[in-house]
Amino acid sequence: MSVIDDLAGELARLPGIGRKTALRLTFHLLKAPPEEAQRLARAILAVRERVRACSRCGNLSERETCSICESPRRDASTICVVEEASDITAIERTGEFRGTYHVLGGHLSPLDGVGPAELNIEGLLSRLGPAAGIREVVVATNPSVEGEATALYLHKLIAPLGVRVTRIARGLPVGGDLEYADGVTIAEALNARREM
Amino acid sequence: MSVIDDLAGELARLPGIGRKTALRLTFHLLKAPPEEAQRLARAILAVRERVRACSRCGNLSERETCSICESPRRDASTICVVEEASDITAIERTGEFRGTYHVLGGHLSPLDGVGPAELNIEGLLSRLGPAAGIREVVVATNPSVEGEATALYLHKLIAPLGVRVTRIARGLPVGGDLEYADGVTIAEALNARREM
Repeated sequence: MSVIDDLAGELARLPGIGRKTALRLTFHLLKAPPEEAQRLARAILAVRERVRACSRCGNLSERETCSICESPRRDASTICVVEEASDITAIERTGEFRGTYHVLGGHLSPLDGVGPAELNIEGLLSRLGPAAGIREVVVATNPSVEGEATALYLHKLIAPLGVRVTRIARGLPVGGDLEYADGVTIAEALNARREM
Repeated sequence: MSVIDDLAGELARLPGIGRKTALRLTFHLLKAPPEEAQRLARAILAVRERVRACSRCGNLSERETCSICESPRRDASTICVVEEASDITAIERTGEFRGTYHVLGGHLSPLDGVGPAELNIEGLLSRLGPAAGIREVVVATNPSVEGEATALYLHKLIAPLGVRVTRIARGLPVGGDLEYADGVTIAEALNARREM
């Protein structure tokens, strides 16, 4: 197998990259200035060498604890629980949340062999001790069956500790079209209606 | 700037990869087994180190001359002229062409400062000497304005040498790009080629 097929094959393993796109990217990397290809290769290696999980929240970080956990401007009394570190990026982009995070590393999925022990739940509980002063845990797992199950499990576990547990709202996406929304989402949006 | 932003930035430079896709790929590379990320980085470096232009036709090759030029099963009396090496991959995929190739390295585009001297036309002419026994040159430049102009220019240059010059048929959508055309269309265009 040639090195060209080799690179196209590796690129085609990436999510959302098909065979044709992989070939197009391969030819681009062949035509681009050599520094561009080298910078990309080095960036891939650097990210794997230097990025690890924050020891407190599980966010991706180049240091022992991440910049959000270390920031004095974040409200450490509120913890937003997410499934993946990439969800933090999505929430941070909104600029709406000033608290800290906790990454579970997935959701409960007994069929896939993912129980509470497989998620970073113990780490979350260790942050909720009486001395920590945590007032609210916002559960921002995905609005999927597994995400909801995980949220319910966390609520049962955390509520007895006297910490407020909230769940991000479900409803119609902004800019969405009621005509194309699924029935469950419309029902949720109706049930969660608020005073205007 | 973090190594994560760094990698996302490099990925976003690739054609067709936007900011969001670049972030998604970055997180995928962070979650994937370390060998997968390393293999991709190595494949990028290998392709730049080991692939060069075939000294005869300009096709991408890991050796002095490419496998098509060296194959005894190819009809060396027919040369298909293409703009880019990636176009060879597209034509080979159809399995309809048994001749050899010649890569121009682009098309005539005076506004961009690309004249005949900037393309590998001299290399093509040197392959058309009386002793070479070339019977036909199939011009398979893109069916764009520049591709047609390049085809006409080549026809004027080559026809006086007593070599038959044909043009792939306009089965390809005008203004389209050969690299993205489907195999059937390319095969039809090859089969319907006409005297220029």
